[in-house]
Amino acid sequence: MRITDMHVTPIAIADPPLLNAAGLHAPYALRTIVEIVTDDNLYGLGEVPGSAATTAALEAAREVVVGKDPFQLNAIQAELIAHFGEDGAGARGEAPWDKRRMVHVYSAIEVACFDLMGKATGRPVCDLLGGRVRDRVEFSAYLFYKYEGAGGALGFETDPNATGWAAARQRAALDPEGIVAQAKAMCDAFGFRSIKLKGGAMPPDEEADAILALREAFGPGTPLRLDPNAIWKVETAIRIGERLRGVLEYYEDPVRGQENMAKVRTALKDIPLATNMCTTSFEDIPGSVRLHSEDIILSDHHFWGGLRASVELARICRTFGRGLSMHSNSHVGISLMAMAHLAAATPNLTYACDTHYPWQSEELLVGGRIPFDEGCVVIPNEPGLGIELDREALARLHEQYKACGLTERNDEVEMQKVQPGWKFQATRW
Amino acid sequence: MRITDMHVTPIAIADPPLLNAAGLHAPYALRTIVEIVTDDNLYGLGEVPGSAATTAALEAAREVVVGKDPFQLNAIQAELIAHFGEDGAGARGEAPWDKRRMVHVYSAIEVACFDLMGKATGRPVCDLLGGRVRDRVEFSAYLFYKYEGAGGALGFETDPNATGWAAARQRAALDPEGIVAQAKAMCDAFGFRSIKLKGGAMPPDEEADAILALREAFGPGTPLRLDPNAIWKVETAIRIGERLRGVLEYYEDPVRGQENMAKVRTALKDIPLATNMCTTSFEDIPGSVRLHSEDIILSDHHFWGGLRASVELARICRTFGRGLSMHSNSHVGISLMAMAHLAAATPNLTYACDTHYPWQSEELLVGGRIPFDEGCVVIPNEPGLGIELDREALARLHEQYKACGLTERNDEVEMQKVQPGWKFQATRW
Ligand SMILES: [Mg+2]
Ligand SMILES: [Mg+2]
Repeated sequence: MRITDMHVTPIAIADPPLLNAAGLHAPYALRTIVEIVTDDNLYGLGEVPGSAATTAALEAAREVVVGKDPFQLNAIQAELIAHFGEDGAGARGEAPWDKRRMVHVYSAIEVACFDLMGKATGRPVCDLLGGRVRDRVEFSAYLFYKYEGAGGALGFETDPNATGWAAARQRAALDPEGIVAQAKAMCDAFGFRSIKLKGGAMPPDEEADAILALREAFGPGTPLRLDPNAIWKVETAIRIGERLRGVLEYYEDPVRGQENMAKVRTALKDIPLATNMCTTSFEDIPGSVRLHSEDIILSDHHFWGGLRASVELARICRTFGRGLSMHSNSHVGISLMAMAHLAAATPNLTYACDTHYPWQSEELLVGGRIPFDEGCVVIPNEPGLGIELDREALARLHEQYKACGLTERNDEVEMQKVQPGWKFQATRW
Repeated sequence: MRITDMHVTPIAIADPPLLNAAGLHAPYALRTIVEIVTDDNLYGLGEVPGSAATTAALEAAREVVVGKDPFQLNAIQAELIAHFGEDGAGARGEAPWDKRRMVHVYSAIEVACFDLMGKATGRPVCDLLGGRVRDRVEFSAYLFYKYEGAGGALGFETDPNATGWAAARQRAALDPEGIVAQAKAMCDAFGFRSIKLKGGAMPPDEEADAILALREAFGPGTPLRLDPNAIWKVETAIRIGERLRGVLEYYEDPVRGQENMAKVRTALKDIPLATNMCTTSFEDIPGSVRLHSEDIILSDHHFWGGLRASVELARICRTFGRGLSMHSNSHVGISLMAMAHLAAATPNLTYACDTHYPWQSEELLVGGRIPFDEGCVVIPNEPGLGIELDREALARLHEQYKACGLTERNDEVEMQKVQPGWKFQATRW
């Protein structure tokens, strides 16, 4: 079994005007899709956050990948590192998303190879990771402050014919009432039983008010999380944490850096701290252990170097008594199924996983959008990821990429279109 | 693919009178062999250190294993833990070998399942662990102080017709000259390029003399290791370490426990400390990190909970800047090939692995003994472990088990047959 080609396709998918610490989501989110083809006419799929740089890096990786056996992941990774170097310190960047190159490139290729290995062996990907410990992987409702608008071609406009969640998704949510309405619509539509609010967008007390309004609306049976994406001061994080004591399932990256996280954790004691910004790579683990900067790590196979590395991260979490949850960015179904297979094979992934999937409306899979059953993705029994590529849909989303003119994610620039002169601040409140 | 049966067979293999901190090897070493059979007429092999207790535990595990899909290792492990419980603190024991039950049971079953997965998918086991990073796995010459004797039916007698290594293996080695002669004969026969001396058997300065004699005989191009199996006092370990500064590749478990290891490490600074006795499970890792009790961990899939867990241990070693080597006990070819596949798929396993294999003479594989090429085991391309069971040889070794009367390893009792009243001391010198 030899890889004969790798197709790298940047796509753009409609994304509503969601607010976050770094600014505003553009009307389109970018992803790069990898399709690896073998000499026995199988293909495997991978998906990573998109940018012209990531697409170019994956194009440059083709010469490493072609000719290889997809089972030889250690060798492929070693050759990619020789080609690109490891991601250096600071490469992640300060934004809520991760800008490292090597982990993106390898993750896209590794997931596609796992899909191929599954197809070659007739096994779902989760079976190649130790086997499923759950048939259904639970996800959480991921709430955002947002402006009115559907995103995509509609931008800040809305589709008057939309119904159900498609209508609710268009509405503004700029205060606790809007957030509660969004939560109800999303939970109704998808059956989610845990809720995460993306914070860092409004003044901290308003976000705390929103969490308290969610608690009021949903009751104590619905776990709640708040993620200010690291832009609060330590004092702010402690003060807001005190307001939310007994209400938060976990408190995600209220501040920036392991030292600050450790200070907040020490001050708040019984509120679990979670991160996908202060401990984001294996290089960060020794500091995390030394400082005990968080209680829960949000894994993300796109950023930790693939599915197998994420299983290894899970072992580290177990070994050091850390909880494990899962992070997401705007994505389509390849990433969703990769996340679901990984979660299915990870015994200590006991939190409902993040997903932006409800905010997207497009898909490039045969059969269209992946359904949620009571908030869960059902793990398929089909070989590999259990999905098939709709090549026409892929071509359409690629055309959309070319037409939209975006080449990287830059939420600051988008925000400046609404609020001229707006600037990202690494520490804001 | 469903498991239809699991055959558990205790065997005894001839073992020469090797000395170690716990006493003397019995004329036979015990192993328990597991053969797992599936409904598509495949079989997978596993091997673990033997005892009546381990054999009974594996017999009791049959009801968990039968009916399962060998890919569903997470589920099998969870059910075994529910059945047996986790191994508790102290379960390892103070002897140089590991007495934990759950890790033995699971390792035997997991390796057999990996062999099956490999056969079912047409892939060598290393390919299911990330793929090979080396085609040849290097092992080291494992020297022992020993009494004269071939072990087995010959006991302390020797076979006058033996030639080559088979003759050398019978000779006593009780001083530096004997150790150097043993090393030369073993390296000549197998091509090993690294040497380990099992210490803890003679007064410490005699063992240091032996290491210095090996250096004299082999020169600085041959890495040397010394393993007193934790029975030295901290002062002794430091004093002997000073004598061997610049000579040892690593210094393995000179003292007992992470605190003592950390003291020795701090005192000796530039001599790398290695362990398979003070950090022996994932539960021990946080203490190891906190105290920095060693520089190198000797993995052993029989004791760390299987091949996948050993890959996860490798990630932990990489994450915390620990080196990685591999431990062994007396074994036959199933364990040797499992060790070799694991090492082939572990990029940071950069030390030559331990093996007792040259001390054994029997085998239960079709084709007989596994050859070493310049100290290396060549990784086969055949599916699974790449070995086939010789059922007649297995039956013969099982008869030998029944005839020998041993039910567990007890080197103290064996030593008392030579030195009446001899007692194991957890700290001796
Ligand atoms: Mg986050
Ligand atoms: Mg040892």
